[in-house]
Amino acid sequence: MRPIAGTALAGTIVMTAFVFPAEAQDRSAAALTSGEVIQASPDDEWRALDPDNTLYIDVGDGRVVVELAPEFAPRHIENIRALVRGGYFDGAAITRSQDNYVVQWGIRALEENESLPDGIATSLPAEFEMSAAGVPFAQLPDPDAYAPEVGFVRGFPAGRDSEADRVWMTHCYGVVAVPRGNDPGSGSGAGLYVVIGHAPRHLDRNLTMVGRVLVGMEHLSTLPRGSGPLGRYESEAEWVYLESVRLGRDLPAAERAGLEVMRTDSKSFEDLVSASRSRQESFFVHPSDRIGVCNVRVPSRPAGSR
Amino acid sequence: MRPIAGTALAGTIVMTAFVFPAEAQDRSAAALTSGEVIQASPDDEWRALDPDNTLYIDVGDGRVVVELAPEFAPRHIENIRALVRGGYFDGAAITRSQDNYVVQWGIRALEENESLPDGIATSLPAEFEMSAAGVPFAQLPDPDAYAPEVGFVRGFPAGRDSEADRVWMTHCYGVVAVPRGNDPGSGSGAGLYVVIGHAPRHLDRNLTMVGRVLVGMEHLSTLPRGSGPLGRYESEAEWVYLESVRLGRDLPAAERAGLEVMRTDSKSFEDLVSASRSRQESFFVHPSDRIGVCNVRVPSRPAGSR
Repeated sequence: MRPIAGTALAGTIVMTAFVFPAEAQDRSAAALTSGEVIQASPDDEWRALDPDNTLYIDVGDGRVVVELAPEFAPRHIENIRALVRGGYFDGAAITRSQDNYVVQWGIRALEENESLPDGIATSLPAEFEMSAAGVPFAQLPDPDAYAPEVGFVRGFPAGRDSEADRVWMTHCYGVVAVPRGNDPGSGSGAGLYVVIGHAPRHLDRNLTMVGRVLVGMEHLSTLPRGSGPLGRYESEAEWVYLESVRLGRDLPAAERAGLEVMRTDSKSFEDLVSASRSRQESFFVHPSDRIGVCNVRVPSRPAGSR
Repeated sequence: MRPIAGTALAGTIVMTAFVFPAEAQDRSAAALTSGEVIQASPDDEWRALDPDNTLYIDVGDGRVVVELAPEFAPRHIENIRALVRGGYFDGAAITRSQDNYVVQWGIRALEENESLPDGIATSLPAEFEMSAAGVPFAQLPDPDAYAPEVGFVRGFPAGRDSEADRVWMTHCYGVVAVPRGNDPGSGSGAGLYVVIGHAPRHLDRNLTMVGRVLVGMEHLSTLPRGSGPLGRYESEAEWVYLESVRLGRDLPAAERAGLEVMRTDSKSFEDLVSASRSRQESFFVHPSDRIGVCNVRVPSRPAGSR
C-alpha cells in the first residue's frame, strides 16, 4: 500500500496523498480521543458545503441532507440536478426498503413509454470508476477485504487500485448511488438508492455512486421493510413519498443546513483516524489499532458552531 | 493467513479448518450462484437449532429468533438462560436505538440497590475471546481490516489470531452481545444489544458476544432512533417493550421456528462463499473475487423445506 506518485494536473485538482501511520499508537495521556480531535480542529480544516452539490430531501417529518460528488460521476450528477430542478423527485415514491441493504426511490430504468423533460438523459454511460491520476486520496493504513487500497477523496470513502490506475467510491453506510438494469449503461439518476446496512462492497465498481448522506439517515433507515423480493413494497399503499427534493442553490440561504465538513486532506482528519484506530477511552481493553474504511465517520457540523 | 495446525482435543470438539481458494474463480457456465448453491445443498449439510440455544423474542407484531453461541461465552449464556426462564426479560424495555450502531434492552450493569433472582449472577468475568486451539474455523481467504484471520465458527462470524492462540466473535450485523460498564467484568447478560448497522468491529474483543439473530432483524432495525446521547430514548414514553423472551426448550415444539442453519464446516458453505466472492450473475461487470466476513450470510431455512 503506497500513495500514488503525485502528479498535479491542470485545473483545480491538487494532489494531496498521505498515509496514516500504521504502527500502534502510544496510549499516552497526550493522545486525543475522536471527540477531542474534532473539538480542537481549526476552522480552516473544515469546508462549507457547495450549494450546487447539496440535496435537501424532505420525507415524512424529517430532512435528509446529501452531499453530491461530481468528481466521481459528473454526467449523472448533472442529470440529477436537472431532475431535481424540474421537480421530478417531488412526490417520488420510495418503493423498496430491504433490511441490511438499501432504500430506493424513483425508477430503476425508464420504460419505453416513459419520458423525462427535455434535456434530461433517460440513460447514461456507466461512471463506475475513474482514473486515479491526480485524485487527492487520504489513504488508510489497514488492509481491506475488497480493494488494494482504501481511503477518502474529498470526504467520500473510496477504493483505489494504483496499478490499474483506478479509483471508485465504496458502498459504505449512507452512500447514495444509481440503480440500473442489467445493462451497465441503463441508469440515469431518475432512481436513487441509499445504503442502510452493512457495506455491500460487492457492488463497488458495478454501480454509479453519486454522494453520501450527511445528516438525517434515520429518516430512511427506520422505514418499514418491504416484504416483496429485494425488499420491494408489495402494494402501492406501502410506498413512502418524498415530499420535495431541492438543490441547495435553489433554497434561500436561511433554509439551507449550513453544514461544514471536516476536510479529509487535513491534519485534523489524520488525527481523527489515529484516534479512531487506537481508542484512548479506558473502556477499551483491546484497542484495535486498525480501522476499516466504512468505520471512519467524516464529521460534519453546523457552520460557525465553534 | 493459514489454518491452525490441527490438534484434536479430548471431548466433543473436532478440528475442522479449511481455507477457501483465494484465486479468482472461472466465471464458467458450470459455476453456481449463491441461490443455486443453497438449492443444491444436501440435507446433511444443514443442522437443526438446539432448543437450549435458541431465544424467541416477541416484540411488537414481530418475532426475533436468536441462536446462542455457548462456545464463546458459556457463563454468560448460562446466566441468560436463567434470566429468560425467570421471566426477567418479559416486559423488558428497549431503551436505546442508535442509528448505524445498536439497539439495546435491559440493564447495562446492576446498580447497588438492584437485585436479581437467586442463582443469577449480577456480574460475570469477561468472556471476550478464548483459546483457538481445537476450535473449528472455516477460514476466509481475503484480508480483513481488524483481524489477522476471519472465518466462521459453527455459523458465527469470528476473528482469529493464531500466533496469540485467540479466537473471538466479530461484531457483524445482527450479532447479539452484552453491554457493560467501564469494568470489563461488569456485564451479566441482564442487558443485551444487537448490531443494526455497519459492523462496529472496534468493539471486537472488548465485549462478550453471545449469539446472532437468525430471523426478524427488521423488528429491531426499524425502531425509531433515540435522540439522546448514544441513541438513548430521552423519555420513558419512547421505550419499546419486549412482550416475552422464551428459550426454545420451554416452548411447545409446534411454537418453535423449526429453523435449520447451513453448517459452516460443509462443502455447501465453501461453495456458497465461492459463489458470493465471484458472482456469476450477469449484472456484475466487476465481480469482486473477494469477500468480507460480515458480508457472508450464513443461510437458515424452515426445517423440511426441501
